[in-house]
Amino acid sequence: MPEILGHNFIAGQRSAAGQQRLQSLDASTGQALPFSFAQATDSEVDQAARAAAAAFAEFRQLPGTRRAEFLDAIADELDELDDRFVAIVCQETALPAARIQGERARTSGQMRLFAQVLRRGDYLGARIDQAQPQRQPLPRVDLRQMRIGVGPVAVFGASNFPLAFSTAGGDTAAALAAGCPVVFKAHSGHMATADLVGCAIVRAAGRTGMPEGVFNMVFGAGVGEGLVKHPAIQAVGFTGSLKGGDALCRMAAERPQPIPVFAEMSSINPVIVLPAALTQRGEAIARELAGSVCLGAGQFCTNPGLVIGLKSPGFSQLLSEVGQQLQQQAAQTLLNTGGLRSYEEGLTHLHAHPGIEHLAGQVQTGTQAHAQLFKADAHLLVASDPVLQEEVFGPTTVAVEVADDAQLRAALLGLRGQLTATLIGEPEDLEAYAWLVPLLEEKVGRILINGYPTGVEVCDAMVHGGPYPATSDARGTSVGTLAIDRFLRPVCYQNYPQALLPLALQDANPLRLRRLVNGQWSDAPL
Amino acid sequence: MPEILGHNFIAGQRSAAGQQRLQSLDASTGQALPFSFAQATDSEVDQAARAAAAAFAEFRQLPGTRRAEFLDAIADELDELDDRFVAIVCQETALPAARIQGERARTSGQMRLFAQVLRRGDYLGARIDQAQPQRQPLPRVDLRQMRIGVGPVAVFGASNFPLAFSTAGGDTAAALAAGCPVVFKAHSGHMATADLVGCAIVRAAGRTGMPEGVFNMVFGAGVGEGLVKHPAIQAVGFTGSLKGGDALCRMAAERPQPIPVFAEMSSINPVIVLPAALTQRGEAIARELAGSVCLGAGQFCTNPGLVIGLKSPGFSQLLSEVGQQLQQQAAQTLLNTGGLRSYEEGLTHLHAHPGIEHLAGQVQTGTQAHAQLFKADAHLLVASDPVLQEEVFGPTTVAVEVADDAQLRAALLGLRGQLTATLIGEPEDLEAYAWLVPLLEEKVGRILINGYPTGVEVCDAMVHGGPYPATSDARGTSVGTLAIDRFLRPVCYQNYPQALLPLALQDANPLRLRRLVNGQWSDAPL
Repeated sequence: MPEILGHNFIAGQRSAAGQQRLQSLDASTGQALPFSFAQATDSEVDQAARAAAAAFAEFRQLPGTRRAEFLDAIADELDELDDRFVAIVCQETALPAARIQGERARTSGQMRLFAQVLRRGDYLGARIDQAQPQRQPLPRVDLRQMRIGVGPVAVFGASNFPLAFSTAGGDTAAALAAGCPVVFKAHSGHMATADLVGCAIVRAAGRTGMPEGVFNMVFGAGVGEGLVKHPAIQAVGFTGSLKGGDALCRMAAERPQPIPVFAEMSSINPVIVLPAALTQRGEAIARELAGSVCLGAGQFCTNPGLVIGLKSPGFSQLLSEVGQQLQQQAAQTLLNTGGLRSYEEGLTHLHAHPGIEHLAGQVQTGTQAHAQLFKADAHLLVASDPVLQEEVFGPTTVAVEVADDAQLRAALLGLRGQLTATLIGEPEDLEAYAWLVPLLEEKVGRILINGYPTGVEVCDAMVHGGPYPATSDARGTSVGTLAIDRFLRPVCYQNYPQALLPLALQDANPLRLRRLVNGQWSDAPL
Repeated sequence: MPEILGHNFIAGQRSAAGQQRLQSLDASTGQALPFSFAQATDSEVDQAARAAAAAFAEFRQLPGTRRAEFLDAIADELDELDDRFVAIVCQETALPAARIQGERARTSGQMRLFAQVLRRGDYLGARIDQAQPQRQPLPRVDLRQMRIGVGPVAVFGASNFPLAFSTAGGDTAAALAAGCPVVFKAHSGHMATADLVGCAIVRAAGRTGMPEGVFNMVFGAGVGEGLVKHPAIQAVGFTGSLKGGDALCRMAAERPQPIPVFAEMSSINPVIVLPAALTQRGEAIARELAGSVCLGAGQFCTNPGLVIGLKSPGFSQLLSEVGQQLQQQAAQTLLNTGGLRSYEEGLTHLHAHPGIEHLAGQVQTGTQAHAQLFKADAHLLVASDPVLQEEVFGPTTVAVEVADDAQLRAALLGLRGQLTATLIGEPEDLEAYAWLVPLLEEKVGRILINGYPTGVEVCDAMVHGGPYPATSDARGTSVGTLAIDRFLRPVCYQNYPQALLPLALQDANPLRLRRLVNGQWSDAPL
């Protein structure tokens, strides 16, 4: 393992021009770790953005297969990071080693999946409309379309996934796959991790002959603003709080040239438990639900923060059992002290609300998070009460008991946009409540049946997105291969000679793509 | 032809609740036409948005083939509008009848093309990742993805295309195809036209059994703000000025729930004339270029507002010939008096600039627009001087003579985002200047070789878009079938029983779609 230098990454070089140094903390003890990091100066932020811009033309024009080699090489480098690496990530995040090992496999797997997308080539969206010189009243010229990267992308690492949503995480993978160089803003919660992963990416870039500015990383509080406002940056990826995401969106919208921000922010992920399921397997549901609420100390974006059921002895029983499970749950260390403070604040709001009752959970004190169960009046949901809509990032959930189907419908209509919604039901439930599906489709990015939202598979079909405030743009996803679409834009070539056309659009179809040719899909040469 | 009632369109009914009436003007004489229009009240705007929201669930869930019937019916209704309709459009816009007939055919053809997209079904983006219960270390659940409409869309009509970019224009067609009900804000420049086209859409909706709120239209100054800020509206389509588009983007970003705005705004569409082409066919280029500058009185978004060449006797000769053509051009009536004022203002800025020289064109006076040719110092382009970057909407163009290839490159790098860029060159030019293509790709949505940007074909491969300020989001197009993507978002279905899945995602593949199944494209049932 290389030394943790703590310098910024600019065009393959390390840079520590400023005086200010930052410390990384042990998440369990709060003690400073023996590494220091150079707060990036304004000039370093500028250089990093310029390095990305300088790399863009070469990088985006590489064949997709060459960028695939780069992503595969990053994956290999990540897999080769040793146990000392895992130990440092654990120190910085208080996450168990098994979780980190799993998250590393997810992160390298994600890179390899995007490499497959590049080799498949459909991300190019190749379309050809051939000339029709005889068409009346006017001839048609030859028109061809494909997608290219939007330009350098600024990516903000997430606190809760030091690997999968950070330096070499999903946003970075999607941007690099799209041909967009990245400037990564390291999260203050895991800077040593970021340094080691950054080195892995730089080694992969060197091994595969990528342009030097393809990956850059800056450390420091407040450096994000300079990045988002930098004229070279053309899009932003972010995973974090609603407040943080909203602020980035505002900055991006107020630039002389506005740019898109893809922020994954806040979701309470309602779980609706239907009557027959309650009757037939209430106990199992209580156990599974409590497990999902506490998974990763409740610090998943898809943590079930709202459990909805129809008023019945079965639902009361479920809440009683979930409450027991959460009450018995050992306290968990959160990712950092900021996270603990936010959790305590969220609980205070819930406790203070006259329409919300505390059902179970030990008094929240000390340096660890205690799991909690609350119950809120259904009218709060119908009226879109903000306290109920706010994500409390940690092992807590709020139950809502609705009187009947009409109130269930009203409560769901009162929900803001969500990453997920879940139906727990037996076949007869799902038949009787089929009307819930179209309603939920309009509220969320992913609907689950008889599962728990906390697992987010990295695959082609995943949507980790949804209407605001779950994300800033419901048309994107930050997990799964569709994430590449956020960083691509179409370009049309009119009346081009074959030799000047990109390979993807040449008559001979040298990339063997399936293309939309004169309104029909075809993988044949023209 | 039905009477021109001038009332707002709300859920298939007509409404004129307010007192204020608006007049439509004869664009040639400035006289009021014998129709009056009811300025929509705040309550009518609200009702229109609510009507669209009420129609959304039913409309978006119709099979694509049913929505295709609706679009085809709109096309038929448009084609059946008689000569009196054409005469009224001509009165309101001062455009010649042949142009209106052509534009009507374009508009109905556009509807039919989107109907084909719906029947093809690929807009759904169906993806399936089947369960892998045996996978280690964790099983994979069944995940399926398709796209649905984002919700009700507000569309703002353009002044310059009373049909193709207005009531039943490209944004409306794309939104309806996506399953999004529309609230259309009629442009003040052609309200009688809008009324007649609105009636045609409502007839088509009735004939094909669409929900009543699928199309709504409001008249009036200032009603757009209420629409964009209405919580039911989920996206905005706009074609117009940079100032107008920027204002809508700001409003949309400042909503409690921000929404995307697709604004097509400002482009000067550089045409680069290369040396061998100048030598071999300078005269023909001069004639074609002057024709493109004056086409439609210069009121196309793709009007070539900038002609760039390398300093040479050939380029001087070209400018002299273009100047003669423009000098001789008869004055043209613009779409409305506001357009004439803007044109005069734009010319005043050009005349007043010390770095810009007036080469040809009659003194701009009277009620019609005189074609003009200016020449600007290349340094203005290199320095991104705002006067040179501003679109002057009318028959004028600015020539820039660059000293050498290095200055050509610097000048192009100084350009803001554009809808189009054009290279005029012989084969040897295109070989020598192949380096221009990647540079232009990063600046524009469409690159033309040996053509003129004013023709915008409606087809699968067209991109009528480009980086800001050409549009507010380079990832979209407002012409061509890819325009539907702006109004779609992905939804993921996890662990769904077959019966509850949308048809597009069922194992049996009843819609016979080509789907991405476990990472491979397939049109087979599973």
